[in-house]
Amino acid sequence: MRFTYECCDCGTVYETDEVFYQCPSCAKENDGTSFPKGNVIVKLNKEDVEKLAKQDHVTMYDFFPYPVPDKDAYPVGGTPVAKPKRLASKYGLKNLVCKLDSALPSGSFKDRASQLIAAQALYHNQHKIALASTGNAGAAMSCAGAAYGLEIVLFVPATAPVNKLMQSVLYGATVVPVKGSYDDAFALSIAYTDEFGGINRNTAYNPMTIEGKKSVSIELFEQLGRKIPDVVYVPVGDGCIFAGVYKGFYDLKEAGLIEKVPKLVCAQSKQSNAISNAWKSGGFTNLPKATTRADSISVESPANGRMAVRYIKESNGWATEVDDGEILDAQFELAKEAGIFVEPAAACAWAALRSDSEMLREKFGEEVEVCCLLTGTGFKDMAVFEGKVSIPEAIDNSKEAVRKRFS
Amino acid sequence: MRFTYECCDCGTVYETDEVFYQCPSCAKENDGTSFPKGNVIVKLNKEDVEKLAKQDHVTMYDFFPYPVPDKDAYPVGGTPVAKPKRLASKYGLKNLVCKLDSALPSGSFKDRASQLIAAQALYHNQHKIALASTGNAGAAMSCAGAAYGLEIVLFVPATAPVNKLMQSVLYGATVVPVKGSYDDAFALSIAYTDEFGGINRNTAYNPMTIEGKKSVSIELFEQLGRKIPDVVYVPVGDGCIFAGVYKGFYDLKEAGLIEKVPKLVCAQSKQSNAISNAWKSGGFTNLPKATTRADSISVESPANGRMAVRYIKESNGWATEVDDGEILDAQFELAKEAGIFVEPAAACAWAALRSDSEMLREKFGEEVEVCCLLTGTGFKDMAVFEGKVSIPEAIDNSKEAVRKRFS
Ligand SMILES: Cc1ncc(COP(=O)(O)O)c(C=O)c1O
Ligand SMILES: Cc1ncc(COP(=O)(O)O)c(C=O)c1O
Repeated sequence: MRFTYECCDCGTVYETDEVFYQCPSCAKENDGTSFPKGNVIVKLNKEDVEKLAKQDHVTMYDFFPYPVPDKDAYPVGGTPVAKPKRLASKYGLKNLVCKLDSALPSGSFKDRASQLIAAQALYHNQHKIALASTGNAGAAMSCAGAAYGLEIVLFVPATAPVNKLMQSVLYGATVVPVKGSYDDAFALSIAYTDEFGGINRNTAYNPMTIEGKKSVSIELFEQLGRKIPDVVYVPVGDGCIFAGVYKGFYDLKEAGLIEKVPKLVCAQSKQSNAISNAWKSGGFTNLPKATTRADSISVESPANGRMAVRYIKESNGWATEVDDGEILDAQFELAKEAGIFVEPAAACAWAALRSDSEMLREKFGEEVEVCCLLTGTGFKDMAVFEGKVSIPEAIDNSKEAVRKRFS
Repeated sequence: MRFTYECCDCGTVYETDEVFYQCPSCAKENDGTSFPKGNVIVKLNKEDVEKLAKQDHVTMYDFFPYPVPDKDAYPVGGTPVAKPKRLASKYGLKNLVCKLDSALPSGSFKDRASQLIAAQALYHNQHKIALASTGNAGAAMSCAGAAYGLEIVLFVPATAPVNKLMQSVLYGATVVPVKGSYDDAFALSIAYTDEFGGINRNTAYNPMTIEGKKSVSIELFEQLGRKIPDVVYVPVGDGCIFAGVYKGFYDLKEAGLIEKVPKLVCAQSKQSNAISNAWKSGGFTNLPKATTRADSISVESPANGRMAVRYIKESNGWATEVDDGEILDAQFELAKEAGIFVEPAAACAWAALRSDSEMLREKFGEEVEVCCLLTGTGFKDMAVFEGKVSIPEAIDNSKEAVRKRFS
């Protein structure tokens, strides 16, 4: 199989049948002082894609560069589209939907990329995959590894939430906590594959992560009755999910199935806002400190920042920043008023959406179709509730105790 | 709307348009020395059901006694059917499938019952629902309550896993931990609704819980291409899920969509085996102590024990007991060799299935279609790993440290 890649920065096109990561000439410039350069975009064959317009129904697999073997061994996709009616009426957005990717096998959106990376490894007869992760990509890759029998080597910041690490250990991965940040783990995982071989699954660095993530848009298109939302809110750290969402809609457009990509909103924490900041300022050299409690989106040098900024613009979208307090409050609100239990990073998308709600209504009307992408289950990080939520005192085992409690 | 109920014990038929719990005459006999009597079975109108045979496709809603409003507010159902290929070949069971109900909104099978109970409350204009739970039913009902705006009062043993309780608190329920067992909480919750009103959602006590739970069988029938498995393994505590699974297949048979109910296997822990024991001995007065670590199936006086024993027989099924060590080992195996992360109660079904695997192959051949019902996500109880699984030591943030770690 031959694959075509286009450098997101210089536009050079590469064709190869090997595993391919970055544009070698752009990547050479990366010295840590600016957003990394050289990520590539997978180009599908336009004729193949145009054939899809004739199908009554498309699936993500129609748009994947690799065949996925034994799909049911690791069932990714088909996550619910919830219509949270109480929130819809509270914020005056009738056509609000939430895509619950917290329901994926390992509990986060990252299963979408891990599925295609497992397929990539199997196709190239590789049996080892290494990666850096804030925790979720690692758990997802480890989950896929368990399902397919692949060896996973995972570099994570030692401070990652314990549930994410436990999960990866249980799935049988080789977990390597690093005394450093996510950005540090990222660099070490590349050093690892350079020296010891295996596929590197780092987000965006391996362009197939973006291809896997695009599946959400294709799925959404079918679930909404072959329609797309007007606006989609995406929680952003490295900007790889954001690019994946864009790419899914882009491919649908290439196939002639939709007319344009929806407006994509980059939702970030004020305490980790590199991409939003770059979109506003137009520069890529500002690398603000990342201190957000939403660990999955705590990133200083966003691995896919340049492509994400480009896609904000190309989709006619924007960036919305919220602070950590708003994120926690949004997380509580989703649980209490919609029964949707997500981790802080996912709640960031909802925090941004609700803070934009008045503007959305004014600019697009209250019929505007808005989708909030919820990327990870609340169980991923229970420590966030410490000191904030407590379980009530136990009562005695007697009817009198019940009476006393309720009168 | 008029509903028809049949007492599981004396066969008396009741017709009413009110909320109905138990057969008053049989329930009078309950004094705690024997499995409780008087649970009732909801009877559908045979003519209505027979019409369903003409449909190309059926859903759980076709078989529900109450209409479910705003289904997408609380999207229950559509959980994946995984085909864990590594386990299938390890145990020589080609046609093994796992139903992943851990993917439901609150992370357990119990969302199925809670959906219909919410519909019941809304239909009868009630806005308060009380229940006892080992934790999952409570979290599920609280999740539904948040989605629909209903008040939930939840009695749980104070020893329930903290994640289940936290989840219910976050969903906004009134959580009442009880210094006692699940059986004690059960009694108190009935005392509560007797005194303070509201719908009581106790498992099996409210017959609509069984009706809600039957949805899994109807869904499975469609997902398997309008076919049913030969054998289904169900983890059992109170025996309400078991009865629900039976009832779903029973209704499909009534509709003429299938010829017979599959063999249903009651999977229990040796440390909480009341139903298995009653099936073997034929008596209902033995109430063995429940000491299993699998908290969701730790039950001494099974609330739906009599009906479950009857359905084991009517399905030509059997009971398989495994000890707690096998349950933990099965939980690890599912994670490591299938990428399926479930709580101990769910793993009990897999532990029973794999311990029967030789017998299954011998008796039914290796083509036998076996389904393992996995009822709750592993995140529900992380404390079970304490002292058993640990996260590796962190390495320094340097390439040398990576080299040292891997050579
Ligand atoms: C739950 C969750 N949400 C959002 C993100 C952000 O994705 P990206 O880093 O691709 O922007 C992540 C990434 O780890 C995540 O795990
Ligand atoms: C995860 C899980 N599995 C199995 C069961 C057993 O169901 P039942 O008590 O209806 O037999 C429960 C009940 O709480 C549960 O939560």
